[in-house]
Amino acid sequence: MDTYTHKVQYYETDKMGCVHHSNYIRWMEEARVELLDRLGIGFSMMETRGIISPVVGIQCRYLRPTHFDERVSVRVTVTEYKGVRLRIGYEMTDEVGNPVCTGSSEHCFTDATGKPIALKKQYPDIDAVLREAAAAE
Amino acid sequence: MDTYTHKVQYYETDKMGCVHHSNYIRWMEEARVELLDRLGIGFSMMETRGIISPVVGIQCRYLRPTHFDERVSVRVTVTEYKGVRLRIGYEMTDEVGNPVCTGSSEHCFTDATGKPIALKKQYPDIDAVLREAAAAE
Amino acid sequence: MDTYTHKVQYYETDKMGCVHHSNYIRWMEEARVELLDRLGIGFSMMETRGIISPVVGIQCRYLRPTHFDERVSVRVTVTEYKGVRLRIGYEMTDEVGNPVCTGSSEHCFTDATGKPIALKKQYPDIDAVLREAAAAE
Amino acid sequence: MDTYTHKVQYYETDKMGCVHHSNYIRWMEEARVELLDRLGIGFSMMETRGIISPVVGIQCRYLRPTHFDERVSVRVTVTEYKGVRLRIGYEMTDEVGNPVCTGSSEHCFTDATGKPIALKKQYPDIDAVLREAAAAE
Repeated sequence: MDTYTHKVQYYETDKMGCVHHSNYIRWMEEARVELLDRLGIGFSMMETRGIISPVVGIQCRYLRPTHFDERVSVRVTVTEYKGVRLRIGYEMTDEVGNPVCTGSSEHCFTDATGKPIALKKQYPDIDAVLREAAAAE
Repeated sequence: MDTYTHKVQYYETDKMGCVHHSNYIRWMEEARVELLDRLGIGFSMMETRGIISPVVGIQCRYLRPTHFDERVSVRVTVTEYKGVRLRIGYEMTDEVGNPVCTGSSEHCFTDATGKPIALKKQYPDIDAVLREAAAAE
Repeated sequence: MDTYTHKVQYYETDKMGCVHHSNYIRWMEEARVELLDRLGIGFSMMETRGIISPVVGIQCRYLRPTHFDERVSVRVTVTEYKGVRLRIGYEMTDEVGNPVCTGSSEHCFTDATGKPIALKKQYPDIDAVLREAAAAE
Repeated sequence: MDTYTHKVQYYETDKMGCVHHSNYIRWMEEARVELLDRLGIGFSMMETRGIISPVVGIQCRYLRPTHFDERVSVRVTVTEYKGVRLRIGYEMTDEVGNPVCTGSSEHCFTDATGKPIALKKQYPDIDAVLREAAAAE
């Protein structure tokens, strides 16, 4: 649905000469932040309303190395949401369209004390946005 | 089999007040480095012999947040190796033994040009160590 | 001379709720990469020609905290170059123009083996670009 | 006075094959955390008492590259404290005693709202520890 572009930084490379694998997890977050912003339910707004959305799972497959100065496109989508868990999917490609990485992140919703929140009941507007985004896929 | 201890650093926390999820991927690497060292097939030795072992997949489940100054124990094991792919498993616990994270990483073996290597044929000593470690689980 | 914009990421914050100070050093690099690109003497081109330009010194003063989702402008300039050492200056401001950080980095030039290079003699074109950039300030 | 040891991680290297310069700033923090702990005025205790100690300045000179798997010793000392600003110095050496980096960090003290704190008045015990540590140098 949405595409986020990350420019590979020098400090993201390692001695193998390409990007260290841990950084793709951070690019997923960068893309997720932008996706939720576009959906009108950005991190800052959610935190202001008292909603914390921790990452509960990460999956990542590395298909091809990426290098300093490349631009990596991250296609980011809400792949699953039924009210409790949110799953977001990521497909990363290099400048010529080669897939470099696919991944997903899973999230729950809690209040500031860590207690689970039922979005549908407490924040029906956010619940509706996520359901619609998941349905669009 | 082996346990690695990581002390949580201030720079590993985020504005939620606990450790940012991307850092656990780095702790997996710290633990893996130490495991392979103990097995006598450390990163540096492998790279000296021309073997590169890129990460091809990562999985991680976050069970409980960890915080600045905590000591996290990472139990690290060779969970699968049949000659081509290596899978390493990680079970992280906090100081009182609560599980905080479980994960796995998958690795292949290539030469410096990125061409796959058959360890059994070209590096039978390393192949034997990995088979034995996988069997011990 | 040039302004680079960095959007603050969630993973750059720490438990104080604002950006961890080590990240500004990375933003300096991001801005420097873009400056050298615009000058036509980018990192990749230099490395292709066998020139390594290590950081030999860093200075940084933190004036005001920055936060997740803010856009930080980095004004980056060649502040000194007389043939051997290169000094680059950075002035960072937030979205309303408040100064948040000032810094500088110092660089030398070596070949792949770490031996110092005299740019004027071996790479007069690069030497000329840096002299001109330094004079423009 | 105190020596902290950091083992260089793979994820701290960059495509030059050695440690990225931004990481030394993080090792300074690691060493500082341990120093303050040994002095009995650790970060966690200070934050519990409502004292925040932001970094207001960083200086760093890089003398020699460090590499994956090396152990870097960080000699860390309170170099200046007269009641308002705290300066901490760092001298890093490699395993054979070669200097690899020297640096310093400057800190102030504020309450949770960012208002400056006079340690001498409000926290005379912490003030005394810092004065003694500075005098010992």
